[in-house]
Amino acid sequence: MRELELIDWICRQSDFDPKRVPVGPGDDCAIVQLGSEQLLVTTDQVLDGVHIKLSEHGAEAVGRKAMARNLSDLAAMACVPLAATATVSLPRSADRNLAEGIYNGLRRLCDEFHCPLVGGDIAFWDGPLAVSVTAFGRRAGVTGGIEPVLRSGARTGNALCVTGSLGAAWRTDRHLHFTPRIPEAVCLAMTYGVKAMIDLSDGLGTDLRHLCAASGVGAELDAAAIPIHEDALALVYGDTAAALRMAICDGEDYELLFALPSRLAKRLCQAQPLPVKVTQIGKITADKSILLKYPDGRSEPLTDRGWEHTT
Amino acid sequence: MRELELIDWICRQSDFDPKRVPVGPGDDCAIVQLGSEQLLVTTDQVLDGVHIKLSEHGAEAVGRKAMARNLSDLAAMACVPLAATATVSLPRSADRNLAEGIYNGLRRLCDEFHCPLVGGDIAFWDGPLAVSVTAFGRRAGVTGGIEPVLRSGARTGNALCVTGSLGAAWRTDRHLHFTPRIPEAVCLAMTYGVKAMIDLSDGLGTDLRHLCAASGVGAELDAAAIPIHEDALALVYGDTAAALRMAICDGEDYELLFALPSRLAKRLCQAQPLPVKVTQIGKITADKSILLKYPDGRSEPLTDRGWEHTT
Repeated sequence: MRELELIDWICRQSDFDPKRVPVGPGDDCAIVQLGSEQLLVTTDQVLDGVHIKLSEHGAEAVGRKAMARNLSDLAAMACVPLAATATVSLPRSADRNLAEGIYNGLRRLCDEFHCPLVGGDIAFWDGPLAVSVTAFGRRAGVTGGIEPVLRSGARTGNALCVTGSLGAAWRTDRHLHFTPRIPEAVCLAMTYGVKAMIDLSDGLGTDLRHLCAASGVGAELDAAAIPIHEDALALVYGDTAAALRMAICDGEDYELLFALPSRLAKRLCQAQPLPVKVTQIGKITADKSILLKYPDGRSEPLTDRGWEHTT
Repeated sequence: MRELELIDWICRQSDFDPKRVPVGPGDDCAIVQLGSEQLLVTTDQVLDGVHIKLSEHGAEAVGRKAMARNLSDLAAMACVPLAATATVSLPRSADRNLAEGIYNGLRRLCDEFHCPLVGGDIAFWDGPLAVSVTAFGRRAGVTGGIEPVLRSGARTGNALCVTGSLGAAWRTDRHLHFTPRIPEAVCLAMTYGVKAMIDLSDGLGTDLRHLCAASGVGAELDAAAIPIHEDALALVYGDTAAALRMAICDGEDYELLFALPSRLAKRLCQAQPLPVKVTQIGKITADKSILLKYPDGRSEPLTDRGWEHTT
């Protein structure tokens, strides 16, 4: 049984009043109507032995990653944090340092993003450490704010871009230290007319599939353009093909993948207004397949799926 | 190390802008300002072996209890559900029935309270089953709605009342089947001027202490008036003293404990407008101690603490 199958099943059970829940499960955040305001909501957990190793990475890294994953989901909608909550289940052997370390990890990232940590629950049990975070967001900007960016807005002919460089994030410690791309996302949505966006948690291959499925389109990736992280290249001693596979499949990069009109993408890639590099890596196509195009003209369907926990 | 100590420590770390977070951690819900609207937020978890036994109670009961605990926190503020999210960590041995059972438990209670389940996360791991829920609420009523009821509004001379009857909830299966007192709480706040409220999760003794501490007052409980649940009496073959101890210390009743002006309490106890019985069990005093008064005139400080997980 795979998580994605279960999540699909759950999404199919949902039947929301669009006036109360304009966007339900299946995007990076849900959108809930509260009076005249729109509330964004996302939730994610970090489990010892699955997403992190407590004994190796330490308590503060657990707290930080749990919060960062959620704030990255707000970034994917080009929204800003409003508040967050966390529940922590601690092994009975845990001492006060462990509990405080987790809290400090959560809290420091919250402070960095002006996101008050307004509630939580702590319980001791016979299981391993688990931290579950829920983050709330609001529209960016004043007087109504800008529309949240969904996965579903990509249109044929749009350029496909990515922030930063990809691959080997969980083989190194980058999955612990990434910074959610919130100001970057807001700038992209406000100034460059980004139409569809997702954060790269499961990997470029899988997350592009999600974005295309939500938009009812396909994509063509330019293999030579995909920005490969130097960590990936170093791990395979410069073997570009192997490193490219990591960039497409590894996941946990927490960079932004987004579609926008191609003339705006050109302007964006020329201006490079963000603290992180933006690269055009392909384009959106009407044909629903996802193709990887090599410099020699060959192209093949992208069958590699990104990182996903399986039973 | 006790949970309450840790939670106290966390509350002391918090320093919120009251314009953004009018109520931070330490009440049943936090209150967050979103534009012109107030958002209520609460989070709580259910862990296999701590709050429930999966092998005995079944998957649906786990999901139901996780959602019910959170909705009960919304009730304690006299607010109504807006939406909820859940994260589930499943043992690797879990099959699809287990996952669907948990979802169904969450979902059925959500449907009953018109609370859309808008997001979630599922992961498999080597630990036991854990379900963490975050519920958010809004003010009850239209055109601005009624003020959320905090723990801190009790005043000297107020009557102290409770819904339902208490004791032995976790010794029987009542902690699995309770229904969050949301409509009851809204009626109490709208019609009977309730000033302070809390839901009885840790037990009358502990939760009364929380309410009094938040309000800066004390209380005098009338031992003979405390409504003892028939389950508690049956378990101790009618030994009233032993059953009273259960009513004060057991916890997990998820009834409402509240303070209100005594003339309104009289009217409430006479009218009995709720589907559940309301009983006056004492009064709020200026002296900060909490006393249990017996019918023979004796009184003693209430030192029994309610149910609390310890290391």
